[in-house]
Amino acid sequence: MKIVGIDPGTGILGFGVIEASAGGSLKLIDGGVIRTLPTDGDSHRLKTIFDELTGIIKEHEPEVMSVEKLFFAQNVTTAMTVAQARGVVLLCGEQSGLSVFEYTPLQIKQALTGYGRADKKQMQEMVRVVLKLKETPKPDDCADALAAAICHSMTARFA
Amino acid sequence: MKIVGIDPGTGILGFGVIEASAGGSLKLIDGGVIRTLPTDGDSHRLKTIFDELTGIIKEHEPEVMSVEKLFFAQNVTTAMTVAQARGVVLLCGEQSGLSVFEYTPLQIKQALTGYGRADKKQMQEMVRVVLKLKETPKPDDCADALAAAICHSMTARFA
Repeated sequence: MKIVGIDPGTGILGFGVIEASAGGSLKLIDGGVIRTLPTDGDSHRLKTIFDELTGIIKEHEPEVMSVEKLFFAQNVTTAMTVAQARGVVLLCGEQSGLSVFEYTPLQIKQALTGYGRADKKQMQEMVRVVLKLKETPKPDDCADALAAAICHSMTARFA
Repeated sequence: MKIVGIDPGTGILGFGVIEASAGGSLKLIDGGVIRTLPTDGDSHRLKTIFDELTGIIKEHEPEVMSVEKLFFAQNVTTAMTVAQARGVVLLCGEQSGLSVFEYTPLQIKQALTGYGRADKKQMQEMVRVVLKLKETPKPDDCADALAAAICHSMTARFA
């Protein structure tokens, strides 16, 4: 099963594609970020995200999309901008015919580390170990996206 | 100039299409709402909004989209769901080649009534008067969408 994980954002959006074997082993296929410019205006930035993400899905043909759910206590304005990008991501997955799943940051942490209190560094280290990489994926947005993908593979496996 | 106004939402999204003449008179072309079901899941609901809105744009071929900006103090979860729909709306406008404008509720109130303290009833009455309608457009979401469209026509005219 091929899974694309997404860490939504407008200025920088992380993505990561992994292949989960029937036996449970995971392999990194692709990972990176989509960047947009603040000078481009909301609607143009959202179209850039949609077009680039559609291209990534066409290239790798994953069956599943796993998207991190938003959780914000502070700064509602930033949260809403991220939510707009998130809406475009969900639409992109649906339009491309993928099964779309959403996980909270807590669910992702629990899936990767067994408890919900892991910090960002520990999470990134888990992503590195699980995917048998020499270094943790950079930038953080890419690592977070891979964590979302890994979360789905584990949740789906044990479900 | 034909303008489509949007009041974003996931369960119910208001739209209104008006024609603004060079002389400044406004005419109602179309108005209504797009509804989605909570049972359908986020990504499916967003695709319904995208598909129906794309259809409305194809039918009326407006040059401009005017979208109400979000302003929420309470309930961050609801705000984020609306923002997701808003992202899809902005993408839809951009993909259809429209010029996309965003106005805050305050800007819309000021454009229609000259001051920012009008209540919902007064705003709906202004929409009715400006468009020379016998009754105020229903439901509220449709009236709000028309108010956004009217706001752009007035702002653009005096700019």
